[in-house]
Amino acid sequence: MKEELQQKIDLKTKPQGALGKLEKLAQQIGTVQNTLSPELTKPTIVVFAGDHGIANAGVSAYPQEVTYQMVLNFLNEGAAINVFCKQHQIDLLVVDTGVKFKFEPHKKLIQAKVEKGTKNFLEEKAMNIQELESCLSQAEKIVNDLHTGGCNIIGFGEMGIGNTSAATMMMSNLCGLPIESCVGRGTALNDEQFAHKISILKQCELRHGRSADPVAVLQTYGGFEIAHITGAMLAAYENNMLIMVDGFIATAAYLAAVMINPLLQNNAIFCHLSDETGHRQLLKYLQADPILSLNMRLGEGTGCAVAYPLIQSAVLFLNEMASFESSGVSSKEA
Amino acid sequence: MKEELQQKIDLKTKPQGALGKLEKLAQQIGTVQNTLSPELTKPTIVVFAGDHGIANAGVSAYPQEVTYQMVLNFLNEGAAINVFCKQHQIDLLVVDTGVKFKFEPHKKLIQAKVEKGTKNFLEEKAMNIQELESCLSQAEKIVNDLHTGGCNIIGFGEMGIGNTSAATMMMSNLCGLPIESCVGRGTALNDEQFAHKISILKQCELRHGRSADPVAVLQTYGGFEIAHITGAMLAAYENNMLIMVDGFIATAAYLAAVMINPLLQNNAIFCHLSDETGHRQLLKYLQADPILSLNMRLGEGTGCAVAYPLIQSAVLFLNEMASFESSGVSSKEA
Repeated sequence: MKEELQQKIDLKTKPQGALGKLEKLAQQIGTVQNTLSPELTKPTIVVFAGDHGIANAGVSAYPQEVTYQMVLNFLNEGAAINVFCKQHQIDLLVVDTGVKFKFEPHKKLIQAKVEKGTKNFLEEKAMNIQELESCLSQAEKIVNDLHTGGCNIIGFGEMGIGNTSAATMMMSNLCGLPIESCVGRGTALNDEQFAHKISILKQCELRHGRSADPVAVLQTYGGFEIAHITGAMLAAYENNMLIMVDGFIATAAYLAAVMINPLLQNNAIFCHLSDETGHRQLLKYLQADPILSLNMRLGEGTGCAVAYPLIQSAVLFLNEMASFESSGVSSKEA
Repeated sequence: MKEELQQKIDLKTKPQGALGKLEKLAQQIGTVQNTLSPELTKPTIVVFAGDHGIANAGVSAYPQEVTYQMVLNFLNEGAAINVFCKQHQIDLLVVDTGVKFKFEPHKKLIQAKVEKGTKNFLEEKAMNIQELESCLSQAEKIVNDLHTGGCNIIGFGEMGIGNTSAATMMMSNLCGLPIESCVGRGTALNDEQFAHKISILKQCELRHGRSADPVAVLQTYGGFEIAHITGAMLAAYENNMLIMVDGFIATAAYLAAVMINPLLQNNAIFCHLSDETGHRQLLKYLQADPILSLNMRLGEGTGCAVAYPLIQSAVLFLNEMASFESSGVSSKEA
């Protein structure tokens, strides 16, 4: 199929390779779907929200209440991810994986609360193994249901005050890189706050030691929302869905997932290079070439949403452009 | 207006600056339209096509007939630009500025033929001053008509076998850079063909000498389609339209236009960093930061078309996202 796809791409009325990354995407999507005429159906972004014990250590510029307030903002359609999903007719779901707040039922909200926030990993592991397993299995069910409903391309967003600290520790451990190479200013810490964040994370490293085991690292540092994303990506792969990978937090979840199942990378589309410092290095480690680089650092799955029309463009040119033969355009002189 | 726009952007439910380039675009578009609630109306891409005498010197990998064949492909909706314009509901028009072919009337084709191709600038100037003036005035009329019809954002594409050679000579002269820094492989020349192209362009430089005057350079090296784009950009600015700037050829036309009227830069949105070698250097010279970098090198305005949804996203977040106050989300701790 790979060769037939390349031939179809090369016979379109354009110089070979002239659509750049869109050609690579078309090749990847056709290969995943095993067809010369791929389709994107019911595109969906799932935003997982959860609170983090580490937020109590003063690692974020925003108070922890912002997690639940932003969930309400998602449900009221006021956030950036709402605007971009609406723009591109992407379905949006929000999952409470462990927010310190009791939400009223809402048609866009899935209740999957494990606990009211993780433990503070400055003091102990973020979650116990049962909690981690609950995250993975609940996420699997959510993704399976979406697949059953006809979705074949899915992106994952996150909301959780403190979660750049969790992602930093995951990246540092799983990539074997020093904390300084992984840490960033999150939602915009000043110099003093940033120095404090680094100092706290180094204490965490001293407490727990280092590990390259994705499950152990998820349990020690992960947020419930991060563990959900890892589980959701694994399930999306099992359903042969295309997986849109967003920014720093989502990529940390992907890192754990791809270490558990390396085949996942075949289905992964890296959407956006985040402005959060560690993301560039993390994408480099993964040899990933994202579609966009817009200096965004918002999370919520916004990188997936704004990259989606370009993924769509890749499918559309493959299906709709004329070939040299059908159009009567002369191809390159030999 | 600039400060009020920044305040509106900063009060949206996101950390300050977290939407990166989209925030800069929102700021620019609001400033151009002098409103806190900008709108994009009747987005349009105009593809100007013309033939080049220099094509006879063997500077392209494709035969000259491809120019008219691709125009027919545009009219038959088979080209990449058709697919992407349809995807984003962008109106598409094609202008014959000087193709060596007689087209039948077509509702999407504007007849503005100056002559059947430019002269070969290896031997003489590409056009005389009357021909250049005809390009500028015809383009002005086309853009004025579109503006009258309600269009406030416009992009320009081009088709013309040989036109990377024209753009290279324009860039080299107007930026004061050696030909080697400006020249690329166009539609994909092999090493031998590429060496031949460079040698030809150096002969052209010897014949005509160097000039930094945009009008003189357009006359000496420009294609009719390039001169049309320059004129169209100048007219778009006069109508206070947003101007989407595409790849290497369109940016060379922009370079001439912005030298004629430096205020043009306020309305210019650079859409895509092309894979054509000279474009990176040209954008650097213009201190332009394009939205996309997809390794495309197709022309036709394709960079504008695929960047358009991101420009739209900038306008939509500014208009539709909730503010901290309206949503009840806590802002950053002092």
